Amino acid sequence: MMKNLLEDINSTLLMGPGPSCVSLSTYHAMSLPTIGHLDPYFIEIMDGIKNGLRLLMGTKNDVTVPLSGTGSAGMEAAFVNLVEKNDKVLILINGVFGVRMAEVATRLGAQVDKLETEWGKVIDVKEVKAKLASAKYDIVAVVHAETSTGVCNPVEKIGKLVAEQGSLYIVDTVTSLGGIPVEVDKWGADVCYSGSQKCLSCPPGVSPITFSKKAMEKIIARKEKVPNWYLDMTLLTAYWGGSKRVYHHTAPINMMYGLYQAIYQILDEGIENVQKRHKEMHEYLVEQLDGIGIKFLVEKENRLPMLNAVIVPEGVDEAMVRSRLLNEYHIEIGAGLGALAGKIWRIGLMGHTARSYNIDKLVDALKCIMKE
Amino acid sequence: MMKNLLEDINSTLLMGPGPSCVSLSTYHAMSLPTIGHLDPYFIEIMDGIKNGLRLLMGTKNDVTVPLSGTGSAGMEAAFVNLVEKNDKVLILINGVFGVRMAEVATRLGAQVDKLETEWGKVIDVKEVKAKLASAKYDIVAVVHAETSTGVCNPVEKIGKLVAEQGSLYIVDTVTSLGGIPVEVDKWGADVCYSGSQKCLSCPPGVSPITFSKKAMEKIIARKEKVPNWYLDMTLLTAYWGGSKRVYHHTAPINMMYGLYQAIYQILDEGIENVQKRHKEMHEYLVEQLDGIGIKFLVEKENRLPMLNAVIVPEGVDEAMVRSRLLNEYHIEIGAGLGALAGKIWRIGLMGHTARSYNIDKLVDALKCIMKE
Repeated sequence: MMKNLLEDINSTLLMGPGPSCVSLSTYHAMSLPTIGHLDPYFIEIMDGIKNGLRLLMGTKNDVTVPLSGTGSAGMEAAFVNLVEKNDKVLILINGVFGVRMAEVATRLGAQVDKLETEWGKVIDVKEVKAKLASAKYDIVAVVHAETSTGVCNPVEKIGKLVAEQGSLYIVDTVTSLGGIPVEVDKWGADVCYSGSQKCLSCPPGVSPITFSKKAMEKIIARKEKVPNWYLDMTLLTAYWGGSKRVYHHTAPINMMYGLYQAIYQILDEGIENVQKRHKEMHEYLVEQLDGIGIKFLVEKENRLPMLNAVIVPEGVDEAMVRSRLLNEYHIEIGAGLGALAGKIWRIGLMGHTARSYNIDKLVDALKCIMKE
Repeated sequence: MMKNLLEDINSTLLMGPGPSCVSLSTYHAMSLPTIGHLDPYFIEIMDGIKNGLRLLMGTKNDVTVPLSGTGSAGMEAAFVNLVEKNDKVLILINGVFGVRMAEVATRLGAQVDKLETEWGKVIDVKEVKAKLASAKYDIVAVVHAETSTGVCNPVEKIGKLVAEQGSLYIVDTVTSLGGIPVEVDKWGADVCYSGSQKCLSCPPGVSPITFSKKAMEKIIARKEKVPNWYLDMTLLTAYWGGSKRVYHHTAPINMMYGLYQAIYQILDEGIENVQKRHKEMHEYLVEQLDGIGIKFLVEKENRLPMLNAVIVPEGVDEAMVRSRLLNEYHIEIGAGLGALAGKIWRIGLMGHTARSYNIDKLVDALKCIMKE
């Protein structure tokens, strides 16, 4: 027999790199009665999600849908639909998720070129300009909010350079969407994907994604079919769009309820107000951490408000602090990854987590643990 | 602004080809507090799910996990991990999901050979034997419970023939798992996948999958990496197994709660008791439908208990009946697909749906609608 582990789940204050805290109404939405994936009422919900995502993503793209997978499925979908064998792809890398993009594209048979920047530093637009002048790329890809370092990359400026070259432009907005402006059309992004469990404050499991007309034209003109039936956008759009909804796969109905409610709440509070709250809470966190001598990894002008990479103070056992925060205070924060492992903590202020009382709880707990 | 469509969702009696009805406790599980995907408590929950799935699937396979996608992601994962370019793959086809397997494998660069049987008929073991004698295949794949027709294929007998050839054997148990015996080890299946939303009675969104040692050996020995980072089993096993859990992607935490609870309930009722209930409810449905002159598509000995394909009586407007069932009685049943569109209804008795009072509701409603 199984233990009933679910009876003893602790409510945890999620202040790591995601998942973030979820509101009561979004939790409730997840538990509403499942209906059929072709039920006309579910199709209305699908349309509501599509319209809501267009507002959040700053796009008029017809093909704007949530994929039935997590943010990493969004990355996979972006590349597997666009990349054809031997396409030249440039990946701008300054953290884990840029590295992952290169891995995904390489596996799909692309000729991948990388422009690497030190982790924790922002991508230099001048270097991108020089790189683009040196070769012609079919696709250029970059992460907007690098979750592994807390750096915000200049995706709009890079987008202008990519547009001059006529390349397709993929932007990862997994951590940024909902917390800072995401302007797909203004940036000239051809594919942009996100995740449900960051600033949207829905549990993990679905990945919003949008494709420009130019991106869809490339997909439709492919010589070979997309080598991934599950994520093929030509099939997915037949289910998510058009007048006749053609069955593709069974959508994760209750996850979609969660996403619907999460978007509903952001629109209800106001997209700009939610972004303002993220900015203000970030500033409050900076001030509070400064009070206990904790400094930031990233220089001020390039910091993300929702993902705060802070330097572990000298002599502090960082893993012990995280472990005590989780076990004694039920607060989760994130560790550093790769070259930053052991050197930083990653404090998330994403979506519903970005409240002053959460920051107070964390800072109080850190004070107690570190003074011992 | 968005309408709050979630406030008006009707509780629907789900008697189609899936999703099926969900118990109150599983709905509640979906709404429990999200915790981190690397939280030690979540890792205990993951281990509970893996052990539960091994019991349900009749396997000792170490690599037995739920994928972060629906049943179709399970099919994709089975093929994308096993198929290498130019592998010879035989697909046994007698319905939509066999056709889909061929499409998935073809896109991955396999040389696909098909053995096709009329939809609604069972695959003939003698024909399989002759086919296997005619050529050597790297992989043979078949659907256990063909959801599009209601046919149960003889996967154990086919497995014996496949084993004689030394080919790898993929079995789709999306609709069968939980409702009829699934015996992965006894069948000699090397990969077997399912979906959460059929006889497990969890909302859609996760796909249990298991890989034999032989299957994992082929994956590890691949000349090229799996061309799908998201579903690469060598990466997924590093997160789901072993002593050190290596972050891969953020698991859909609340969907995993739902799956945990759904498995818990099946084990609590007893796997054999649940299967017995499916069988008895199927027999009760046959009897009740016989009373109103509705006949079955599939011959008795090859019928699935959980997916009942019945012939639409002469002169009845099948779409009108389905539409009235949904709109007036809040009961969903399924339409025919492909060659069977307009000719059959598909009545699901999956998991929590398989109760006599549900059958009574449906038959009463059908009587009312058809006598008008």
